[in-house]
Amino acid sequence: MATVIFIGAGPGATDLITLRGARWLGKADVVLFDALTDPELRDMAPQAEWIDVGKRGYAHAMAQERINALLVEHGSRSDIAVVARLKGGDPNLFGRLEEELIALDQAGISCEVVPGVTSAIAAAAGTHRPLTRRGVGRSVSFATAMTRSGEVQGCRSADTEVFYMAGQKLAILAEQLLQVGWSVETPVLLVSDAGTRQEQASEATVGRLASAGERHAGRPTIVIVGAGARPVLARDAVVGNLLPPSGAAA
Amino acid sequence: MATVIFIGAGPGATDLITLRGARWLGKADVVLFDALTDPELRDMAPQAEWIDVGKRGYAHAMAQERINALLVEHGSRSDIAVVARLKGGDPNLFGRLEEELIALDQAGISCEVVPGVTSAIAAAAGTHRPLTRRGVGRSVSFATAMTRSGEVQGCRSADTEVFYMAGQKLAILAEQLLQVGWSVETPVLLVSDAGTRQEQASEATVGRLASAGERHAGRPTIVIVGAGARPVLARDAVVGNLLPPSGAAA
Repeated sequence: MATVIFIGAGPGATDLITLRGARWLGKADVVLFDALTDPELRDMAPQAEWIDVGKRGYAHAMAQERINALLVEHGSRSDIAVVARLKGGDPNLFGRLEEELIALDQAGISCEVVPGVTSAIAAAAGTHRPLTRRGVGRSVSFATAMTRSGEVQGCRSADTEVFYMAGQKLAILAEQLLQVGWSVETPVLLVSDAGTRQEQASEATVGRLASAGERHAGRPTIVIVGAGARPVLARDAVVGNLLPPSGAAA
Repeated sequence: MATVIFIGAGPGATDLITLRGARWLGKADVVLFDALTDPELRDMAPQAEWIDVGKRGYAHAMAQERINALLVEHGSRSDIAVVARLKGGDPNLFGRLEEELIALDQAGISCEVVPGVTSAIAAAAGTHRPLTRRGVGRSVSFATAMTRSGEVQGCRSADTEVFYMAGQKLAILAEQLLQVGWSVETPVLLVSDAGTRQEQASEATVGRLASAGERHAGRPTIVIVGAGARPVLARDAVVGNLLPPSGAAA
């Protein structure tokens, strides 16, 4: 029996993985990875067999069953010690971790979970827009824009609402946000490829959200609505690529 | 002029900082750190001057003003290049980042923000309880249990509600949760020192929350309410210290 280590790869840039995650990768015999994880992470586990399980955002049930089966297959091997299950962002948020934990448990395979930086937090860091704000931004809610059945859902439950995987349904999301009570002037920030060198950010309002997706087409996109979308400095509108120069990368 | 790098130290364990954060620490000339960051992080920046700014959870205004002044003082120095501002968890969530960004901007000092693993995510990872659940746990809200004025606020806005800094006001929080519509049977998970070797987790319900704080007294405590508090496996009640053995620590 091997041990399965779920690892949050972070939002994309290789150096946003945790030290613990990187160290486990260095010990992995097999790495089952999602499509959205950074290919450069391979350099941290050249000794391992890397298996692309091809998951992108919402996987349909068959894909998830296949991933579960692969996890159990490799986790049951007696010739290896560590199977890394590498997920984009953090496995505890929209990561379908539950299903994979159950599959491993049913097979009697032990596991650990290494947390990661989730995309919304990377988006906030890259744009210098904290998700909480003094006085006006006391709570933050994370949701996917789409339900399992493919419906789009807006909500207004916190001072700041963050929608994951929202890029392809902006018009419907905008409509839903108005319906649940956000005003047309509410600030919105769109960030695609958060935390990577390709990060793009643009400003909108709920009223202009429907047509704000152009530069984010085909990219994984976070939509931030409300207090946390507002620039900290009034003049600090986002233009172009906001990723800070990574002088720290070794 | 130096550059100020805000770094999310992660929830406590030294190896839950990101590679980028660790690399910036290694280049820092001065580190301004909060009380809740792991003392072992000092080993990553032995070359730096470490200054304890003493912030624990909610700082009163004077403390924050003093921190702002220290940031500007060191950020303005011409004899150094990098000032690290090390914050527990992630600076974008309940980190008072906004105030510090404004202070630096007013002084014309440039900065970057390196995101980190926030405590709630570490708590979910350590207890094997993902914050999102298929079908029943589509949204997660993060809030502090206390407002600026010291009032306790419960809310019921998402399928899972996470309250930061909730340990000292469990009875009032329980009352508030009932008032906003959570039932007495709603599952609750308390996790203190999330992500560290001292992590403690215990189960409760909203009805039993008031008396559930004993083992968490005096520790930074996260309270998770709703779908994400439920064990993935019915038999998997938490007992004792749930931190997985960190075989990966180098």
